[in-house]
This record gives sequence, structure tokens and C-alpha cells, in this order.
Amino acid sequence: MSKKPNKALSQIGFQTSDSPISWLMRTKLDRPNLISLAAGFTDNESLPLSGSRRLLNDLLKEESVGRAALQYGSTAGDDALREITAKRIQELDNLGGSKTTGNLANRTVITHGSQQFLYILTEILCDPGDIVLVEDPTYFVYLGIMQSRGLRGRGVAMNHDGINLEHLEQVLESLRRSGELKRTKILYLVSYFQNPTGKSTSLLVKKEAIDLLKKYERAAGHPIYILEDAAYRELGFTGQSDASALSVRSASDRIIYSGTYSKPFATGVRVGFGVLPEALLDPFLRIKSNHDFGTSHLLQKLVLRALDSGEYTKNLAKSQRRYWAKANVMNDAIEDYFPDLVQYEKPKGGLNFWTVLPRSINTGLKSKFFRESLDQNVLYVPGGLCYVDDSTRRKPSNEMRLSFGAASEKDICIGIKSLGNVIKRN
Amino acid sequence: MSKKPNKALSQIGFQTSDSPISWLMRTKLDRPNLISLAAGFTDNESLPLSGSRRLLNDLLKEESVGRAALQYGSTAGDDALREITAKRIQELDNLGGSKTTGNLANRTVITHGSQQFLYILTEILCDPGDIVLVEDPTYFVYLGIMQSRGLRGRGVAMNHDGINLEHLEQVLESLRRSGELKRTKILYLVSYFQNPTGKSTSLLVKKEAIDLLKKYERAAGHPIYILEDAAYRELGFTGQSDASALSVRSASDRIIYSGTYSKPFATGVRVGFGVLPEALLDPFLRIKSNHDFGTSHLLQKLVLRALDSGEYTKNLAKSQRRYWAKANVMNDAIEDYFPDLVQYEKPKGGLNFWTVLPRSINTGLKSKFFRESLDQNVLYVPGGLCYVDDSTRRKPSNEMRLSFGAASEKDICIGIKSLGNVIKRN
Repeated sequence: MSKKPNKALSQIGFQTSDSPISWLMRTKLDRPNLISLAAGFTDNESLPLSGSRRLLNDLLKEESVGRAALQYGSTAGDDALREITAKRIQELDNLGGSKTTGNLANRTVITHGSQQFLYILTEILCDPGDIVLVEDPTYFVYLGIMQSRGLRGRGVAMNHDGINLEHLEQVLESLRRSGELKRTKILYLVSYFQNPTGKSTSLLVKKEAIDLLKKYERAAGHPIYILEDAAYRELGFTGQSDASALSVRSASDRIIYSGTYSKPFATGVRVGFGVLPEALLDPFLRIKSNHDFGTSHLLQKLVLRALDSGEYTKNLAKSQRRYWAKANVMNDAIEDYFPDLVQYEKPKGGLNFWTVLPRSINTGLKSKFFRESLDQNVLYVPGGLCYVDDSTRRKPSNEMRLSFGAASEKDICIGIKSLGNVIKRN
Repeated sequence: MSKKPNKALSQIGFQTSDSPISWLMRTKLDRPNLISLAAGFTDNESLPLSGSRRLLNDLLKEESVGRAALQYGSTAGDDALREITAKRIQELDNLGGSKTTGNLANRTVITHGSQQFLYILTEILCDPGDIVLVEDPTYFVYLGIMQSRGLRGRGVAMNHDGINLEHLEQVLESLRRSGELKRTKILYLVSYFQNPTGKSTSLLVKKEAIDLLKKYERAAGHPIYILEDAAYRELGFTGQSDASALSVRSASDRIIYSGTYSKPFATGVRVGFGVLPEALLDPFLRIKSNHDFGTSHLLQKLVLRALDSGEYTKNLAKSQRRYWAKANVMNDAIEDYFPDLVQYEKPKGGLNFWTVLPRSINTGLKSKFFRESLDQNVLYVPGGLCYVDDSTRRKPSNEMRLSFGAASEKDICIGIKSLGNVIKRN
């Protein structure tokens, strides 16, 4: 892409680089026959066509509900949807009772996808040059927001059950020593079936992370928030997951939580949500109002109906089964077609396998390996895209994120087989 | 609202003030019996309930279209919707032919309402401290974006047919002399049935404004863009309006145009659009991708169907008739109930009457007059909210924006009568 510098552009307009996810999604849309194990499209077969049709039909049939759905709502979102969202979170957290629901619902906001929540949240907390701590590796689209807004990042290594707390302490300590704790605002955790690694953060790790951050708050001179991104929380295959950081009651003024209905229900229905500490609610809603006055009421009413009617749960169970089946297909294909030296772990939820190739193989966007994979008609997310720029460590370049979300079972097999061949040749 | 300062907030998070529109909308939602002649809700009776139901039902019945609607799309928006949007603009501009449609469609992006377009556009062009020239008075929600992002504004006086070009030249000249032209990025014009005054900008004024800005570009060192906000363009009551600035062919690299389907169709369906100069397209899409990856595909497909099927045009004609009738009701009520010394002009489109009271009456949010009106159960937009902070002139404080968009004909009469009484008492 040739680009003449345009002096009218703002810092943000000038410095924002092309988002890899846009590029990956565009590549897939332009080459419909490409097997994409890359961008986060979801499973076409799981989309709730007839359910959505029925729900929309019903709600637009009722005069008053229908009119409300086609009219503006409030900036924070539909009250009933905020209420049911708070209740769901509490149920998932096993908190039962409804004592705190009122308060949680008041702190819940509805957004055009959880991406918009992450964007606005970052706007209200971070100035250019501020620091966000992220998992190493992390959700690369969030890194795009950071890049665009001129934020700095520090990567925190991961264990099997979430971030490595010793490393978190080392990072905090080094920031304290360099005087940069004052610029450190957020610890960003993708806590369930993490994108990209599939790992989940245990409640214990969340609690200890909260304690550690509190310890360093005095030196920071302000709260350091945990931003818990629970986008994949409902896409688990088996059993119960740990509670969210919201369940740590004494920490509610430090925990920001984001989730989405788009991924589990329908990505074309852009409805996400977030829970904020009370002190951040006003600033958030002011910016949200400047963005768009509030999330499309029609989409909110549709999701509300889906939740109320049980359609959401029904569809979710179906999606979980399908993703579980597809994860098994990908797992088997990897076993069959990848050489043994490729390391990976079968995820228990989410949409991705994280694979570690021999160090000699560079998987980057400009690599020979990436080009050869494209020649074989397969697209993946280079692992390097998932690491924040952090000069205190080297970025690995020999990893791939492989998504089983959108591709058919047949295409998963063909794609993994082709990739296996490329690996063997390299 | 008591507010402890939170040191973790960013500059934007800290400085953004509560948006008056949020406050006005909330006040109305909290007091359903209040007669609101204030916030921009639209006419409930005109909402296309049965039409939307049928369109959604049809599109979700077709497997492939339905699946696409429930899946992610591209960041720029649905190609067919971009194409038909470009075509509509060309038809409204009376350009006929389709020669340039291709190019216009490529430069068209779909957003979650035109508000999101304005927000992102301002993000990519303006750094804190940059200057935007606005009409005096102008759309107050845009002023909210400017306030939040730390932008400075200069007001340009208005004539009957748009901005006063002599004053525009004076403002540009004074900015040149003070060396601030370098910080001047945008001239923001609400060009059709302007919110709040109801005035429309003639094509001649647009052309001369373009020429004037070009003249000062050398001193600025970069393009100064015209941002033409055509939100109310399709809500005219009679006859044809002048063409947009996009029709000035040689200026396509300087014109940014925004419009919306939400207001004329259904405000709960947040679909707006904008046309950008080619040089701004990439930066815009990068930020849009960071915001939300792209506008809800379901909403886009609904609007596309509405346009394709003729439902949009049918509903638009109905809305225009209803708003025209309501404008007449408000006009008659003002004639009947307001004292003669209140100045106003009957609008030819849009949703608002702009009224000028005697100078002795302060209509501000904290005024006695505003309180007395609320006591009489009537809400209006204080005119002062529609003026940018600009120390080079005094803000008038004796004006009101009265909207006939949402209120029923009966409530319009009651509301105007009550306001008339408050005016007479003051």
C-alpha cells in the first residue's frame, strides 16, 4: 500500500497501522475458497436463523415492544438486558442470590460488540505513553487498539493456569523502580479459553493478581485496574469454569469485566457488554454517548428475547457441541498430519489451537512459510502478531494460531494436512 | 453529581463533560409524561413496524442471505449497501449517469449511525488543540465530540442560505495572522434543514466556501476539509434541495460527507454512512476496525432490503408527510400562543423550530426560565448549547430549539401553549 503522508491527519490517524484482523478477514472475503484457519468468523451452521426470525417476528408484532425496538434507547443500554446480563454473570460465578444483582446491573453497559467496550474503556483510562500489562501472548486485536492510541505494553509470561505471578511481580517491581508505575493503568487478562492459547485463568491467580496490583497502587498513585476479557467464557466444551474476578467482592472497585453475546449467538448481531467500577461509569457513558448515543435498540431487544425465551441457551448448547466436534477434528488432523515436534495442547473451549513449531521456522506475515501456506490455500494467524512490543524480551516467531471456528470439518482436515506438508518442507 | 477525581483517568476520560443529549434523553425516559420538545427522538407512529418485520422475515428465510446477515461482514460495510448509498447520493445530487458511482461507492463506509462516522472522522483528523470551524449555532452533539477530544472551535455566522462567507474569510484571515491555520482541520457544515436552525446551505455557498478554504490551504500546510453533515437531507417537506458539496467534482479530495438511514427509517436501526476522500479511507477503516470490526451485518442487510424493496422510500414519504403536518401544528401553536416578539421561521424540513426570545430571557439549563418550563412539564433544548466556546464573540442565551419530531400533535399544542405562558410571565 503506497501512502503519501497527509499532514492533516491526527497522531492517531497517522500512526494507526492496518489491523491484521481486517486484512485477514478481507483476504478471506476476497478468496472465498481459501481455507481460513485465521480470522475470527464463527461457525455458519450454528447461526440461529430460524430462531432469530421467530424472535424478531414476535417482537415487531407487538406494537409497544416493536416501536421501542425501532426507536433510540438510553446510552447505557436496555435496562432489562442489563439486568439479565448481570444475573447471568452472577449465575456463572455461582454467587446465587440476587442481593448484589441490582448493583451489578447498574454497573453494566451494553455496547456494539465487546470490542467497542474495550475501545472506550481504553479511551477513558489511557493517555498516549501509558502502559498496559498484557498476557504473553494475548488477543491481537486489543494490541491494535494499544498501537493506535500510542500505548506502551509489557508482556507477562503465562503458566498453565494464567499469568505467571512471579513474573507479574517482577514486571511491577521494574516499573516501580523506573518510575513508570505512574503510567501503568491496566492489567488485561483474557481469562477463559484465552485467545490465542486456549488457557484459562484460575480464580486463585486472579485473586493473587488483584492483591499484587493493590500492593503497587500506592507507588502508582492511582488504581491499577484488571480488565477481564471473558469473550469466550460461554464457549467451553465441558464442565464448569472458575468464577470471574467480579466474584472477589472486596475488589469490585478495581475490576472491569467484558463479555459478548455476538460470538456465542450471532456475530452479525453486534451486542457486547461490560461491567465497570462505579467511578468509571460516568466517564464511560459520556464517551459512549459521543460514539453513538447507545447500542442499536433492535439488536438489544433481539438478544433480550433470545435470552428470555431460552433460544440463546438452546443455540449456545448447539454451538458448544459443534465447536467441540470441530476441535476434535482439528486435534485428530494435527495428530495425523503435523510432525511430532510441533507442540500444542487441546483446548477445552474457545475457537483456537495454539501450535509451537520448531524455532527454525518463522511463521510471520512476510515469511516464506506464510507464503507457502497461502499457496496451499490455507490462512492462519502468525503467532508473532499476538505479542506486544516489549523490548525486555524477544518475541517468539515460530507459533501459529489455528481457528476451528469458521471452517467446515472437511476444510479443517484439508487445511491441517496442507499445513503439515508445509511444515515438513521447512 | 458528586465526582471524586480519579487519577487513573485519561485526559479524555477526565475532561469529557456529560453530554446534554444524554441528559435530555434520560430526563424524558425517566419522566414518560413530560412533553419533550428537546431530544432527537423521532416520530413513533412513522416507525416501519410491519415493513421491518416482513423484510427481516424474508431475509432470514433465505439460507445464504440470512447466514450472511448473522455473520461478520467487512469493516467498510456491505458492498451492495455502499453501492446503493453512493447511487442515492448521486441521484439526490442530480448527477445521473453511473460513471463515477464506482468510485463514490469505494469511498463510502457504513457506520453505527452517522454519529459514529463523525466521531471516527474527528479522531483521524484532529489532535487535542486543533481547530474546527462550525456554524453559529451548530449541532450540539458534535460540539460534545469536540469538547471531549480537547478541540478548539471558531463559530462562523450564518445567513439565510448557509454560512456568511465574509465572516468565514475574516475567521480564516485571523487564524492565518495568529499562525493557527496550521491547527485548523475542518469546516463542519450541517447543510440541509440545519439542526438547530432549519436553514439549508445553497450549493453556491458550498462552492465559495471550498474556494476560500483552498486559498488558505497553503498557509495551513495541509488540506482543510469540509465535513458536510447531511443527516436531515431526506427529511425535506417540499421540492428539491441543492446538491451536496460532493457534486463539486474538482473538490472530491477535500469533501467529507455524512448521512444516515437511522433518522429517516428507524433510529433503533443504527446505520449511518459517510463518503471520504481517498486519502482518508485507510486511516478511517483502521480506526473503525479498532472500534468494532464493522457495522452490524444484520442491520445493514435490513436497510439494504428496505432500500431495494421500496419500503424505505414508502416509509420516507410517510414520515415526510407526518413531519410536515407536525411542523404545521407547531407553527400554528407558536402563532397562537407565543407573544409576537418571539422571532422564528417555519422550517422546510428537518425536525426543529429555532426561536429567538427577547434578550432579557435566559433559556439556559440552569435558568429560571428552564426550571419554570420543566415545572410546566415541557423540555426544550437551550439555544446556548448549540454555540461553540469561542471567545471572539458572545454566546446568545435567549434562544430555544423546539423539536416536533417525537411529540404528538396534541402534546405539541399543549407544550407550546405552556411555553407561551412561561414566556409571557418572564
